[in-house]
Amino acid sequence: MLDVAFTAAQARPAAVTVVIDVLRATSTIVQALDAGYCRVLCAPDLEHARGLAGPDRVLAGERHCVRPPGFDLGNSPAQTLPPRGRELVLATTNGAPAIVRAAELSEVVLIAALLNLDAVVAALAGVEDLQLLCSGTDGRPALEDAYAAGRIADRLAGEHSDSARICLAVASTYPDARGALAASADALVLVREGLGDDIEWCARESTVDLAPRAHGLHDGTAAVDRSSSID
Amino acid sequence: MLDVAFTAAQARPAAVTVVIDVLRATSTIVQALDAGYCRVLCAPDLEHARGLAGPDRVLAGERHCVRPPGFDLGNSPAQTLPPRGRELVLATTNGAPAIVRAAELSEVVLIAALLNLDAVVAALAGVEDLQLLCSGTDGRPALEDAYAAGRIADRLAGEHSDSARICLAVASTYPDARGALAASADALVLVREGLGDDIEWCARESTVDLAPRAHGLHDGTAAVDRSSSID
Repeated sequence: MLDVAFTAAQARPAAVTVVIDVLRATSTIVQALDAGYCRVLCAPDLEHARGLAGPDRVLAGERHCVRPPGFDLGNSPAQTLPPRGRELVLATTNGAPAIVRAAELSEVVLIAALLNLDAVVAALAGVEDLQLLCSGTDGRPALEDAYAAGRIADRLAGEHSDSARICLAVASTYPDARGALAASADALVLVREGLGDDIEWCARESTVDLAPRAHGLHDGTAAVDRSSSID
Repeated sequence: MLDVAFTAAQARPAAVTVVIDVLRATSTIVQALDAGYCRVLCAPDLEHARGLAGPDRVLAGERHCVRPPGFDLGNSPAQTLPPRGRELVLATTNGAPAIVRAAELSEVVLIAALLNLDAVVAALAGVEDLQLLCSGTDGRPALEDAYAAGRIADRLAGEHSDSARICLAVASTYPDARGALAASADALVLVREGLGDDIEWCARESTVDLAPRAHGLHDGTAAVDRSSSID
């Protein structure tokens, strides 16, 4: 069964969970690993992230979309180039906690954005108990995540849940990723904060050939690296 | 703002909440009131419903789609004709508890199905803080409820949340109600139980000119009658 959770609160145990936060956490993670960061440490909150600060670590994140005090970078894929250290520590409102939650629920957790659509679909071939976990926004479903989930589901065979069918409808309704992202409530906030360029960046498809995997939890933090093997 | 909750667990306080359970609780309620029942008492569970048994009251409901032991009727719009008493007591897995939950969260709670689509849309004109509460199935989103929410949202002006946009996409993807309902997981279960005729019944549009309202809670039970005035 291919199922979709629209928020982290809806997530359930599954053999494989794929976390989606197109605007912008999973886009930032995918881009950061492609840019050369060795790992992204996803923290459940800002305080955890600050506690992970150290040599060769770069603090990135947001609250209300903007870079928190003392952080090196915002939650922006563009800002991950070039890398400023070996590891990125990421604390965001929705995506990073969703990854932490997914790591509690599933043995295998992959990170998906539109940036790595092809790689994620390839990595998921043959997976039977699959959950696409949309991070959503402040506990509510987000259009851009549902769109991305639909794009993934559209390319995977097997039984689809009603949630997956709902996302397929979203994917088929918008002519392209840019249109879906632009119609979302999150996009309005980003434009208002002067971060509209990130929308264009996150709407790019399959520019990164990685399906990053989150490896377990250590002190509430999930570590994401380039490995994508599910076995 | 017009918002949609995909399950009762997602519901939030709102000035007006419209509860949707197309297959089949809200279809049964709407049909029962049109058939001549004066009130439908929505119970949170079977035990509550049995406790409400009395003269001129008819017990209706389901567990796993079928009529529970000792109940007079299943959760079926067709079975509400002709009325067998003044009041229908209804206990279902998803819709009836969602109505109880809505009555905890909103001063005004209306009951919507496709059967009363036009009447619901007319009753909601001008409502600004509106939540469409899809009952879903066992805590998961249901395609047919998202479809009905999208059909309602499509006819109401004002700001739409991302959830509402997701439902609009569902409504625009399926050519008609019958197609949307037939594609749902709930329809599969109904057909398997020999209740496929109910799907056809619930796919009818605007055959009932009522927007029933749930009036508060009494001992955990919400009473629904024909009154639809929001003021």
